[in-house]
Amino acid sequence: MSLRELKYAVLAFLVLAAAVCRAEVVSPEVHKDRRVTFRLHAPGAERVGVKVQFAPDVQPMAKDGDGLWSVTLGPAEPDIHEYSFIVDGLEIPDPVNPVVKVWRRRSKSLVEVPGDRPMFFEVQDVPHGAIHIHKYRSRSLGVTRGLYIYTPPGYGAEAKVKYPVMFLLHGSGDTEDTWAVVGRANVILDNLISQQKAAPMVIVMPYGHTPAGSVVGLDRRNTSSFERDLIDDVIPYVERNYSVSSDRRHRAIVGLSMGGGQSLSVGLGNLDSFAWIGAFSAAAPREAALKKLLGDPNVVNESVELLWVGCGRKDFLFDANMRFIDELRARKIKHVAHITGGAHEWRLWRRYLNEFAPLLFTTDE
Amino acid sequence: MSLRELKYAVLAFLVLAAAVCRAEVVSPEVHKDRRVTFRLHAPGAERVGVKVQFAPDVQPMAKDGDGLWSVTLGPAEPDIHEYSFIVDGLEIPDPVNPVVKVWRRRSKSLVEVPGDRPMFFEVQDVPHGAIHIHKYRSRSLGVTRGLYIYTPPGYGAEAKVKYPVMFLLHGSGDTEDTWAVVGRANVILDNLISQQKAAPMVIVMPYGHTPAGSVVGLDRRNTSSFERDLIDDVIPYVERNYSVSSDRRHRAIVGLSMGGGQSLSVGLGNLDSFAWIGAFSAAAPREAALKKLLGDPNVVNESVELLWVGCGRKDFLFDANMRFIDELRARKIKHVAHITGGAHEWRLWRRYLNEFAPLLFTTDE
Repeated sequence: MSLRELKYAVLAFLVLAAAVCRAEVVSPEVHKDRRVTFRLHAPGAERVGVKVQFAPDVQPMAKDGDGLWSVTLGPAEPDIHEYSFIVDGLEIPDPVNPVVKVWRRRSKSLVEVPGDRPMFFEVQDVPHGAIHIHKYRSRSLGVTRGLYIYTPPGYGAEAKVKYPVMFLLHGSGDTEDTWAVVGRANVILDNLISQQKAAPMVIVMPYGHTPAGSVVGLDRRNTSSFERDLIDDVIPYVERNYSVSSDRRHRAIVGLSMGGGQSLSVGLGNLDSFAWIGAFSAAAPREAALKKLLGDPNVVNESVELLWVGCGRKDFLFDANMRFIDELRARKIKHVAHITGGAHEWRLWRRYLNEFAPLLFTTDE
Repeated sequence: MSLRELKYAVLAFLVLAAAVCRAEVVSPEVHKDRRVTFRLHAPGAERVGVKVQFAPDVQPMAKDGDGLWSVTLGPAEPDIHEYSFIVDGLEIPDPVNPVVKVWRRRSKSLVEVPGDRPMFFEVQDVPHGAIHIHKYRSRSLGVTRGLYIYTPPGYGAEAKVKYPVMFLLHGSGDTEDTWAVVGRANVILDNLISQQKAAPMVIVMPYGHTPAGSVVGLDRRNTSSFERDLIDDVIPYVERNYSVSSDRRHRAIVGLSMGGGQSLSVGLGNLDSFAWIGAFSAAAPREAALKKLLGDPNVVNESVELLWVGCGRKDFLFDANMRFIDELRARKIKHVAHITGGAHEWRLWRRYLNEFAPLLFTTDE
């Protein structure tokens, strides 16, 4: 070994050692029995706990002599669970876990617990579609915005196929990437399509906040400016760039929370554009808006192929959703009320998408 | 107002209040004079500081009566700077800033400081290309892997155009999304192309770690298994799915750090596949490998259109890069040695990409 080679070897060792020392904390560690170990290196902290969706409250962690805090919890249900650490009262995402839900307001870490057989949200060895990230100029809003689009496996192989489209809307804490990154919409559809449980479709995931809206985007101005952006800018952009059907009977609109309110308002308000409407844990439209949207039940019943309203019993919007369902019943409007367990959370919305997508675009097949 | 409407109003107020309370901490706040205020709500902490690339060391933050820590620093150079908080010795990303570099080992937050005129990395009102996220089956590695692809503005408008391709490789702490999310490769190329400073090109961003590699991926097994994946799986996949040239004179390979080492090894080792080679702050090949790669200087000089080696003087790999450049000089191999200020950091690699891309695919135009 020459002196130069020795220098390289020493340098390589130092780089490796530095990297290994920084990488020594493994968190989270998912065990085969579905228990999960969480770890945080925080020698200066006095009290550390983990808040995770599969365990109650904040679970205390114990510190070893090197200042490494840890706790093993579970076994957990197979799912993608959110968690965060509470360090002397400060809530933080796990600094060594790159899988982060970068919420508009506060980031959370995610831990994926696989099933004994692959779950519907797990990446499996099936044909995969693709995600496309676009920036488009919204003329109606006067700004440049992001847009996520999913194309199914085999898209583009036959030039003349016009795919049906699902417009998939996010919640008030999310952005246009959340249904892909956190919601796994592409993975869920890949799996459904490979099992022939859902029609191959394009999914359009627009950004739901507009300059007109408040921080939380739950006001009417946000809904109406989003409606203009979707109808006047997003749909024409998608139709210029993708091989999609422009027939209302091949268009669905569905969303969660704020996006559920938008899908009901925009869907029922534009029956010439959409025939399939879904709402997950929706911020459902209120009375004045309902009168306008549901004013003529016959028109709604003749136009809508599916009106699907899903909500969990522990959701803080549960009562509001039950009232909306009552309004549909009172007006004799055909719908599916899908009442389940669960709260206002992504674990539920992934399941709802997995249940809703197979119902779409079935009437002419 | 009916009782029901009142209930809705109260509910809406509570949701809004909860959201506003959670959103009250704004961090980072970039002022017009390019100073930046960092804030963290941590009433239980005893000492909080911010480590940011435009200020030395860890800058202490001061706490107010509500437990809100803050400091205003700068003015900063227009750039995208990394930062993290140090809370009683614990390094964390900013929990309320959704712009996070989710490094494979430890996440950092990012703050974008705009220029008086738009900088090369800023999203501008120009035609935008798109990012495409694929999953492909790597037969050579036996796993399913992610792949990011950039297509330039206007891609697909003329069916017969075969675009040149840049293969853009990440560092050992990164994944296949880092050049897009952190490196802004798409934004940089959008801006260059709109100014006609770079040829419209497709950028392929593969994942550089393989099951054969170590944690840091700097060993030979990782380089050779990555080489097989790139040549035997990635390139055929891209050519099946995109309108790209398969002529070596329209293919570039370039990367940073670990990816710089890969681009030199794979590029110089496959001169039948690549004619344009770049290395940013590279983990440059060592002596034994050099003999093989540079063994016949005439072949290299006849085959390579550009061999570009960039490194900052404060980079911990600076000496290694200078030694590599010495080897090129000793062998009379044509190259560009681009020695600059700066350390081993993304601020430099964005600049290098902005300087390197305009040099590509220029010989037959």
